[in-house]
Amino acid sequence: MKEKIERIQNVLREQEIDGWAVFCHHSYDIHLKYLLENWFSGPTLVLITQEGKPKVIASRMEAMMINSEIYDVIEYKKGSELQELLENQFNSIPKESKIALNFVEEDEVFKKLNYDILTSGSFKALTSLNKELEYVSAKNLIFDIRAVKTKKEIENHQEAARLAEELMEEVVEPSIKPGMREKEINALIEYECNKRGGVAFEAIVASGPNAAIPHHTAGEKKIEENAVLLIDYGVAYNLANSDITHTYWIGKNPPEKILQAYEAVDKAKEAAFNKIKAGVLSSDVEDVVRDKFEEFGYDHEKLFIHSTGHSLGLETHDIGIGISKASPDRPSKQLLENSVITVEPGLYFPGEFGIRLEDDVVVRKDGITRLSFTPSEMKCL
Amino acid sequence: MKEKIERIQNVLREQEIDGWAVFCHHSYDIHLKYLLENWFSGPTLVLITQEGKPKVIASRMEAMMINSEIYDVIEYKKGSELQELLENQFNSIPKESKIALNFVEEDEVFKKLNYDILTSGSFKALTSLNKELEYVSAKNLIFDIRAVKTKKEIENHQEAARLAEELMEEVVEPSIKPGMREKEINALIEYECNKRGGVAFEAIVASGPNAAIPHHTAGEKKIEENAVLLIDYGVAYNLANSDITHTYWIGKNPPEKILQAYEAVDKAKEAAFNKIKAGVLSSDVEDVVRDKFEEFGYDHEKLFIHSTGHSLGLETHDIGIGISKASPDRPSKQLLENSVITVEPGLYFPGEFGIRLEDDVVVRKDGITRLSFTPSEMKCL
Repeated sequence: MKEKIERIQNVLREQEIDGWAVFCHHSYDIHLKYLLENWFSGPTLVLITQEGKPKVIASRMEAMMINSEIYDVIEYKKGSELQELLENQFNSIPKESKIALNFVEEDEVFKKLNYDILTSGSFKALTSLNKELEYVSAKNLIFDIRAVKTKKEIENHQEAARLAEELMEEVVEPSIKPGMREKEINALIEYECNKRGGVAFEAIVASGPNAAIPHHTAGEKKIEENAVLLIDYGVAYNLANSDITHTYWIGKNPPEKILQAYEAVDKAKEAAFNKIKAGVLSSDVEDVVRDKFEEFGYDHEKLFIHSTGHSLGLETHDIGIGISKASPDRPSKQLLENSVITVEPGLYFPGEFGIRLEDDVVVRKDGITRLSFTPSEMKCL
Repeated sequence: MKEKIERIQNVLREQEIDGWAVFCHHSYDIHLKYLLENWFSGPTLVLITQEGKPKVIASRMEAMMINSEIYDVIEYKKGSELQELLENQFNSIPKESKIALNFVEEDEVFKKLNYDILTSGSFKALTSLNKELEYVSAKNLIFDIRAVKTKKEIENHQEAARLAEELMEEVVEPSIKPGMREKEINALIEYECNKRGGVAFEAIVASGPNAAIPHHTAGEKKIEENAVLLIDYGVAYNLANSDITHTYWIGKNPPEKILQAYEAVDKAKEAAFNKIKAGVLSSDVEDVVRDKFEEFGYDHEKLFIHSTGHSLGLETHDIGIGISKASPDRPSKQLLENSVITVEPGLYFPGEFGIRLEDDVVVRKDGITRLSFTPSEMKCL
């Protein structure tokens, strides 16, 4: 926790920002969990300045959950005291200081979605506390803290991926039987995730035609025999998420059409693996994946309806550089050394089936470190 | 789903609001799940006007998850198309129409937390799409939709509570053994919740002194023998949450101090049950609870550090009238017929132990319908 604060204070100094204020009430800001390593349901403020001990304002009911060696904790008893405490805090900041808040400017809202966190009421309230401060978007600060991972964070990702593979192989795969409901499998996955750390996101468990819906959630549908079963899931371990997708065949001898699609997806994934290294353009990786699909005779524009991968971290869709096409308003960026990303090509045949294979990798100077290993040959359960 | 839309359209007409726009991107708005009965991770807009079929703008990747009998679905392929589609939609609304958005005014942000949902960027972006519309806070609209439950919603609450009690009695209680970690019990609870519906919120599993921390989350701590174990958990069933707290004794023969506190909490709960009915002031219920603690000789100001109960619904801390003290800036309100609330008095002895007992009840004209039944005598496991 101490290292985390030091890292943030370093970035503040580099970016010449005087402080970072993270504020949540009923809403949700992952940075609060990142900073305090706990969930708070009452209104809570964290204020980190370039030097000294950061401050937290929290409800009396939750203040005891904060590490007081790291933070100066100020408690409020009733919600009505909060405003005054915030005013005191913001008024103690020297005039004309630059304070970063988790918002983006209006013209960037559709481009920088992940940074548009602060609610409109909180934004208006915070920025009115002290009119002599300058409020800037925390986007560059957040990017620098999250897009590239520390050694410790990469170790956590490694463990999050290992735990996910372990629970799938040892517990979930042997339990899957035709006739089970999708949500029963989801329940089992979450149970095993929770035992090992936590659930990264609500698992996708999609049988047969449901596998053609990339973001299908586990429902009442029973697992079909002689059909695909797609499972997209992840473990949260020490604030690092894994995100892995398997596509199985339930039964024996998958039909040729399905085996071919599986092979194409696997080869597309491999092509991405071979292309990825620090400094390579994100869109160049996307291109080799789509080229591979074309090679196999698939119309990727119609059948591969999402991007190849995203940054992975504190959130499953994390801040950072993922793998996607360039577009006129979003030029492609270079992949970053020591970032963690997913590689997840897929082919979706609406009403029939879908195949997606997803692994997590660390981007290295000369290539990748794979954190997970979905199989090259379709597994039959 | 159809009834839901009709109900919303009725409220729109009653309140003379022309439409309600719910917009989410990376952020989270429970109303999107309420309306579409699914989670969307791409930017998604729902627009409901007083008449006709509501509209949804969603990503191509997720649009197939929307019920097209209820909604007109407009797909975008790339994020860059979204802005134009939103502009078209908002510009097709007649001039000077009143459109409700999920925000609150700056001066209400610390009072109406639950309504302050829209992110600051989204708020600025949406309100700039068509300057000839009038944007109003959706707070009254949301209140009327959520604070009082329909017959069907109450049935769902009943089932959510029944399922929670079932899983605790049949599975969790028999599994608890000293030496298990708190998070193992949490994992088991979530597993059983997921099998029956979903998890209402991350369960609190607090052993010994941890039980004195009202919002403690389940951690690595091992369940102590001859100590209390507090479990606060709930099932999500068809968009209705239950929220129940048990406090157990792990071992035999709890000490007198603990039995007395348990009895006081139970009697305080009973006093609330006897007081609650539609039309009674919320603060009058809070008072009988605190009076009861005083009767037992406990300093409630120090030992009972939260309010007696909250509205329960779509969210665990729902929109509506709960049970709390009045304060100068927040006069007390009358309890509403057919609202669902929690009753959860507690006593917390820092560093020692805590007792909380929480049940869910429906507020009726002449009293309550209890949905859950935490025991009057402390259960030893």
